[in-house]
Amino acid sequence: MNLVTFTATGQQFWGVTAPGGVLALSPEFPQWKTLRNVITAGAMGEVLAAGAGRAASHPDGTFTHDIPVPDPEKIICVGVNFPDRNAEYKDGQDAPPNMSLFPRFARSFTGAGQPLIRPPESPQLDYEGEIAIVIGKGGRRIAEAQALSHIAGLTLCNEGTIRDWVRHAKFNVTQGKNWDASGALGPWLVPYSDPSQISDVEITTRVNGEMRQQDRTGRMLFPIARQIAYISTFTTLAPGDIIVTGTPTGAGARFDPPIWLRPGDVVEITVPGIGTLRNEVADE
Amino acid sequence: MNLVTFTATGQQFWGVTAPGGVLALSPEFPQWKTLRNVITAGAMGEVLAAGAGRAASHPDGTFTHDIPVPDPEKIICVGVNFPDRNAEYKDGQDAPPNMSLFPRFARSFTGAGQPLIRPPESPQLDYEGEIAIVIGKGGRRIAEAQALSHIAGLTLCNEGTIRDWVRHAKFNVTQGKNWDASGALGPWLVPYSDPSQISDVEITTRVNGEMRQQDRTGRMLFPIARQIAYISTFTTLAPGDIIVTGTPTGAGARFDPPIWLRPGDVVEITVPGIGTLRNEVADE
Repeated sequence: MNLVTFTATGQQFWGVTAPGGVLALSPEFPQWKTLRNVITAGAMGEVLAAGAGRAASHPDGTFTHDIPVPDPEKIICVGVNFPDRNAEYKDGQDAPPNMSLFPRFARSFTGAGQPLIRPPESPQLDYEGEIAIVIGKGGRRIAEAQALSHIAGLTLCNEGTIRDWVRHAKFNVTQGKNWDASGALGPWLVPYSDPSQISDVEITTRVNGEMRQQDRTGRMLFPIARQIAYISTFTTLAPGDIIVTGTPTGAGARFDPPIWLRPGDVVEITVPGIGTLRNEVADE
Repeated sequence: MNLVTFTATGQQFWGVTAPGGVLALSPEFPQWKTLRNVITAGAMGEVLAAGAGRAASHPDGTFTHDIPVPDPEKIICVGVNFPDRNAEYKDGQDAPPNMSLFPRFARSFTGAGQPLIRPPESPQLDYEGEIAIVIGKGGRRIAEAQALSHIAGLTLCNEGTIRDWVRHAKFNVTQGKNWDASGALGPWLVPYSDPSQISDVEITTRVNGEMRQQDRTGRMLFPIARQIAYISTFTTLAPGDIIVTGTPTGAGARFDPPIWLRPGDVVEITVPGIGTLRNEVADE
């Protein structure tokens, strides 16, 4: 059973997955407006227990997925985190001593099943399949050895990118990484309970069924525990914060010539134990 | 009369400036929890009218300033936006065609009069004096000619930076720009009514009374209207969003050898018509 945020008949709910659909629990817990509030209250166990064994309130087809935590204080993405990926930049630099980090705004992501938007300003929409973690217990200067205990749950991310806007200006990838609805998060939040859920699992990205990215988290240059420790050195991590942990080699920009996403293309990111995040591309 | 967010006896209020202090208005408008809610409701005029001619509820010395909008959806900073500043990077590159942008998290800023925090991890705390605008009316793809009408108010920013962490990794200045309480925003929000408030005003930064930065907004490489137009090309600007518009040359990193801020140093950023943002440096 996983946690979900979804919209039905114009209203946003949070709840849990249930056979054949989802079960809205937010009406039963009005004190928590979003899953961020549930996580902040340390109440994930309570709401999962409340949903156990119950039927769906909203069958599949009657709701749309939203990003699992719709209002995080911050979303931080880790760049250049797999072997070969550093080499893709062809700038002659060795792998850096520290991880590259950039923030994304929540509105740059859409939910599972919702269209990934290609804007009229650029044809260079590209995919990046990743695991995203959601922070449960906040903290500053979290020790690497304790870091994984700060995770509340796991989800998937298509860290969609407008490639030419990434290098639009000196330094910083901000504008190429923050187009409205250019990426996706979801479909749900899988409760985190054991390091084996993330320590060496396979990430695959398929476009129209064709494998484009395939690697294992055990090969990350900066493992997730180290990410939490490093990021919390400078900023206090808060419950509900999202860390997008890095993508394998094989984005469309890597092909010669590059292969950009086009309207109608279907991108599927899969990690065993978490699920599949599926989105179709549409022109704005 | 300006809008303020402040804390007194452990509680956060919003209100307006008043002779000898501030007037709390949030208890009279419980429907708006923060100034972001006031701005989103288009109610700045209403709350300014409610405060007109009234005495301070909290005299100076009985409250501390918070950042004027404590919970913005996003804070976007413009880098390398004054002549000479591009040359400071000494990377042999000409001024870029587009502005460099990077996000900061709200918790990287403290309020006026509160300590700027130098962390134990680095001695390289540096100042950057800037004007910050707060968005009133949101929008996407805002035309440059209409852009200034989307501003709700003006404040000042010490875009404090941990210099060695700016270049800690490949690309992106994220970690050098986001240390908790390494910068400041405030002291208040000056309602925006006329382009002359920002079109060619002087920004000065003094450290212990010594002038370090001095330039005029008329010399910006990317004027504020263009910033709003460019940023809103890729992301929807929301009411309460903050754009930190760029700093003149003269940060401590520019000196040879560099002059970093040290505990006890006082940084004052002044713009006529907006005010002075004053903070003292303290070790964490």
